[in-house]
Amino acid sequence: MSTRENISGVRALTYDVFGTVVDWRSSIIRECGRLGKSKGIDRDWGKFADSWRGGYAPAMNMVRTGELPWTSIDSLHRMVLDRLLIEHGIEGLSEDEKDYLNRAWHRLDPWPDSIEGIERIRKRFIAATLSNGNVSLLVDMAKHAGITWDCVLSSELSGHYKPDREVYLTAAGLLGLEPGSMMMVAAHTDDLLAARAVGFKTAYVSRPLEFGPSVRAEETDGMPFDIIAQDFLDLAGKLGA
Amino acid sequence: MSTRENISGVRALTYDVFGTVVDWRSSIIRECGRLGKSKGIDRDWGKFADSWRGGYAPAMNMVRTGELPWTSIDSLHRMVLDRLLIEHGIEGLSEDEKDYLNRAWHRLDPWPDSIEGIERIRKRFIAATLSNGNVSLLVDMAKHAGITWDCVLSSELSGHYKPDREVYLTAAGLLGLEPGSMMMVAAHTDDLLAARAVGFKTAYVSRPLEFGPSVRAEETDGMPFDIIAQDFLDLAGKLGA
Repeated sequence: MSTRENISGVRALTYDVFGTVVDWRSSIIRECGRLGKSKGIDRDWGKFADSWRGGYAPAMNMVRTGELPWTSIDSLHRMVLDRLLIEHGIEGLSEDEKDYLNRAWHRLDPWPDSIEGIERIRKRFIAATLSNGNVSLLVDMAKHAGITWDCVLSSELSGHYKPDREVYLTAAGLLGLEPGSMMMVAAHTDDLLAARAVGFKTAYVSRPLEFGPSVRAEETDGMPFDIIAQDFLDLAGKLGA
Repeated sequence: MSTRENISGVRALTYDVFGTVVDWRSSIIRECGRLGKSKGIDRDWGKFADSWRGGYAPAMNMVRTGELPWTSIDSLHRMVLDRLLIEHGIEGLSEDEKDYLNRAWHRLDPWPDSIEGIERIRKRFIAATLSNGNVSLLVDMAKHAGITWDCVLSSELSGHYKPDREVYLTAAGLLGLEPGSMMMVAAHTDDLLAARAVGFKTAYVSRPLEFGPSVRAEETDGMPFDIIAQDFLDLAGKLGA
C-alpha cells in the first residue's frame, strides 16, 4: 500500500510540540544566557538546559504513577528549576525573575520549517497541538512563535500525560473523529508508538538537533510509522498538502 | 473611570459564538433551503430555523439540571432536529442527509465584521471561543468561516453549559489567568452577567439581526457592561486594537 492510500482517511494531525515544533534547547539556552548576563551570572547554559529538560520526564512520571496529583507542566518545570538553581549555585533571583525564567518555556522558537509546514498542512487538514504542555503555555508559545493552530489540545484536557492512552483518545473525541482519522506527528518514537497503539496514524519527523549537536537522533529503522519525514515541509509534501 | 482604565488588566477575550460571531439564522435557512430544493421539499425555513434554535435552550437545560447526562450540542441539535422533522412533516431523508443537515451548525457564516475584528483584537489580546458548541463544531466552523482563534474553548471542557459559572472559571484556568484578566464578548446579556458574576470584564456586541428582522435586540440600558459595541470593529477600536 502506498503512503497516499494508507493516509487517505486522515482528517486531523496532532503535533507533539517540545522538540517537534519548537527548538526548546536553543531557546532555553538563550533565555538563561540573557538573564545570566543581566544578573552577572555565568554558567554552562547548555548543560543547565539539558538538566532542566532532563528533570521533566521523571517529574511527569510522578504524576503518571499517582505519586503526585495532577500538576501542570508549568509547575513541574518550576519544581525542577528550583532544584537546579540550588545545584548550580545560582542565587539572588527574585520571585518575579524565577517566574519569568520558568515561563521561558512559553517563549520557545519554532524550527525554521515549522510555520510554513503547519500552514501548508492546515489548508488540507485540521492541525492541532497534542502536547504535555498546559494549554496556557501552548497558547502563549503559538503567539510568541507566530504559529497558527486550528485547535490547542493538551494532555491537561485529559488529566493524563503522554504516552498514556487517555491523552490520544481524548484528543480524538474532542475533534469528533475516530482514532484512524487522526495522525500523530512527533520527533519521538515513544509518543508515536503510544498513539499508534490506540489506532492513530503516525508521522515521524526528524529533529536531529533537538538535544544539541552531540546527541544522535533516535533510530527509526523498522519502526511501523506511516510517514517518516525530514521536516514539516517534507511532511506536507508527503501528505499532498 | 474611563473604558481604557477599566480594561487595562485584560489579557484574553472569550467570545460567545452562535449569534455573536456567526449569523446562525441566515446560515441555517440557507442550508435547509438547499437540502429542501434538492429533495423537492418546500417549507418556511425561517420558522424551521427559529424552532431549531428555540429547542436548544430547553434541551441544554435538561443537561444543566441533571435530567440528561452530559450531552454535546451536536447530539442536542440532533434530538431537536428529529422532533422538528416529524412536526414539519418532512420525510424521506437518509441518515447521511440528516447527519449532514445537523452539521449545518458546523458551517455557519460569520457576520461581515467578525473576521477583521477578531484579527485586529488578536494582535493585542488572546482571542478564544467560549461557546456551548462542542470543540469539533467550533473547529469545523472556524475552518469553514476562515476565522483564526488563539484557542478553542468550549463548555464541553468543563462538563457544564453556560451560564453555569464552571464554564467561565474553567476557561480562565486553562488560560492561566485570573477572571479579572478575562473579558467575555457576547450579544446576550445573560452570558455577560454570568461571566461578570465570577469576575470577568464584559463587552456587549449588538447583533440586531440575530433572530431575524422582526425580533428586537435586547435592552442594555443600565446594564453594567464594561464595553458596549456596535460590532467587532467598534469593539477593536474601544480596546485600542
